[in-house]
Amino acid sequence: MLETTIAAVGPLDEPAMTAARQLQARLTKPAGSLGALEELSVRLAGLAGACPPPLPTPAAVAIFAGDHGVHAQRVTPWPQEVTAQMVANFLAGGAVVNAFARQAGATVTVVDVGVATPLPVPEPTAPDAATAPAEPVDHAAAAVGVPRLVAATVRPGTRDMTVTAALTREEAGTAIEVGIRTAGELVDAGAGILVTGDMGIANTTPAAALIAAFTGVDAAEATGRGTGVDDPTYQHKIEVVAAALRRHSPDPTDPLGVLATVGGLEHAALTGLILGAAARRVPVLLDGVIAVSAALAAAAFAPAAVGAMIAGHRSAEPGATVALRRLGLTPLIDLGLRLGEGTGALLALPVVTGAVRVLHEVATFDSAGVAEK
Amino acid sequence: MLETTIAAVGPLDEPAMTAARQLQARLTKPAGSLGALEELSVRLAGLAGACPPPLPTPAAVAIFAGDHGVHAQRVTPWPQEVTAQMVANFLAGGAVVNAFARQAGATVTVVDVGVATPLPVPEPTAPDAATAPAEPVDHAAAAVGVPRLVAATVRPGTRDMTVTAALTREEAGTAIEVGIRTAGELVDAGAGILVTGDMGIANTTPAAALIAAFTGVDAAEATGRGTGVDDPTYQHKIEVVAAALRRHSPDPTDPLGVLATVGGLEHAALTGLILGAAARRVPVLLDGVIAVSAALAAAAFAPAAVGAMIAGHRSAEPGATVALRRLGLTPLIDLGLRLGEGTGALLALPVVTGAVRVLHEVATFDSAGVAEK
Repeated sequence: MLETTIAAVGPLDEPAMTAARQLQARLTKPAGSLGALEELSVRLAGLAGACPPPLPTPAAVAIFAGDHGVHAQRVTPWPQEVTAQMVANFLAGGAVVNAFARQAGATVTVVDVGVATPLPVPEPTAPDAATAPAEPVDHAAAAVGVPRLVAATVRPGTRDMTVTAALTREEAGTAIEVGIRTAGELVDAGAGILVTGDMGIANTTPAAALIAAFTGVDAAEATGRGTGVDDPTYQHKIEVVAAALRRHSPDPTDPLGVLATVGGLEHAALTGLILGAAARRVPVLLDGVIAVSAALAAAAFAPAAVGAMIAGHRSAEPGATVALRRLGLTPLIDLGLRLGEGTGALLALPVVTGAVRVLHEVATFDSAGVAEK
Repeated sequence: MLETTIAAVGPLDEPAMTAARQLQARLTKPAGSLGALEELSVRLAGLAGACPPPLPTPAAVAIFAGDHGVHAQRVTPWPQEVTAQMVANFLAGGAVVNAFARQAGATVTVVDVGVATPLPVPEPTAPDAATAPAEPVDHAAAAVGVPRLVAATVRPGTRDMTVTAALTREEAGTAIEVGIRTAGELVDAGAGILVTGDMGIANTTPAAALIAAFTGVDAAEATGRGTGVDDPTYQHKIEVVAAALRRHSPDPTDPLGVLATVGGLEHAALTGLILGAAARRVPVLLDGVIAVSAALAAAAFAPAAVGAMIAGHRSAEPGATVALRRLGLTPLIDLGLRLGEGTGALLALPVVTGAVRVLHEVATFDSAGVAEK
């Protein structure tokens, strides 16, 4: 599935982009006056191969949840059980991502790809994704404001990457396929844009390791304070990331190997979601540092996948800026957010929709009888 | 009316702000992880005097349209008739502000405060605002997507500020009152937030003069390229702004005098809108350089009015950044927009709503059964 998905990721359509640039020039506004929105609208035309491209609606948030063996290294003061508790909070509609999704009219799908502790809610029965493909899920049934849980546990959390590889290559590949399958199902159900979400206590630690591995910066530059750890924990966290990188010397030209040795299950699943969106030529709105670390993996698998990526916001995590620079993406919002879940991306969603809406709804100088300079 | 409005502008309510800070700390997210949204939610609690403050919805965009005598100095290549033509475009729903307002669920009210050329649409009959208060307008009837025109012409464009004062003090005061009245009517009709809009060919020239007058920077620092003028026009525009400032030496402690000598009718009306919103303790979302130049005037009349202001975005015009710095406001979006009309502010509206929504809808650690660190 990974190979066929990668093969389906193609370049942006130049004629559609040219048509979008020409349309922008005829709309009743000074040339260039919509700044970054104009460039974004052109790129989305190229992705869709049509001008105007379809409005990116409805949006579907996919939150991949997993735990991390490296939590044992005390890189965060939060107990591991909070991952499962927050999954329950998502399903009850009580988290920030739920509030923002309701506001944006987005569906929320929570995919348990590797939560280590029992969920405080009954899990729907579904085959183990590691051994068999899950039954097709009725994503169309996911109404706005009614989050759904998809059970697709690859394993109950990763192994401690400072001791051994976090995942086997097979496990990492299975998690990627969960993401690809999720993308396909959401697009089949009518989603016009996918929004990345994540939950996993300690998951900024493997994100930092992924960013360092793919970009070559050192651990200190890629690592941030996550939920806001104190100075001693922060210094220790940098050391943990550096130790994992020393142990595995991940090869950035082997993204599956990087994800397996120093990644996480939600990072691998997000890599699959991004590749799946790009293969279907549907835009994928990236949230914070977890998402952009996965985006680096997706770009390593298929460089053209960057054409489908939109950077929702600039996370406060320094590694996010390193990754965005490497990807060549400029974030739409920069408000010092560091919550994850998909929250920053959802705040940016109206900017994306607005950029496309202009091509659909704004009058031309001719049609409106407005003089040009 | 101006005096009573200024007198009604009060400080933020400290107990409500303390309650909002305490609530933010109990919500299921790491402390501070919503960045600038947390501070914004606290300020809006202080403005409303309640925690949580009301959701800032529905939004009402007020677009003040006017022309400028300084257009005769060739500060822009666009013909003056475009102001009237764009008013018609707003009323037909064909401009970018209309597309963004429909998306945001905002009403659009176009207030002709001084368009110089005939509107290509029938104007509703209403008393001249310069001689008598307009009949109360049924703002509640302004459905989303059906823009309304309010005729409140103070005079058909300002005078050329390089030759004489742009307005008399009386005319400037009347335009301010149009804005105050518009704010009151929109709030009475149920608006939870006001959004500034403007239209006026050449109106970045008086905006630059206002910003220079209120902040003390020189004309070159306050002046930008507006719709994108070429180098010779830009240099000439700076000279025009400098000449107006030399002629009038406006006194920043006399905001009515500043607006009269080097301002515009839409700038004065926006000053009134902002003061009217602040007096009613309703937030006002500022668009670009025209709005922030008016905000400087509003702050000069009533410093506490800044508490009601939210900077929607950072306009590409350099004067906007000068003004925002003076006001102490950090913009929510920074995408290189320079269109005006209220477009940048409307893109930022979901961020404001989201910031408040968090206080209404997100579970606490206790209620959700989520462990703290």
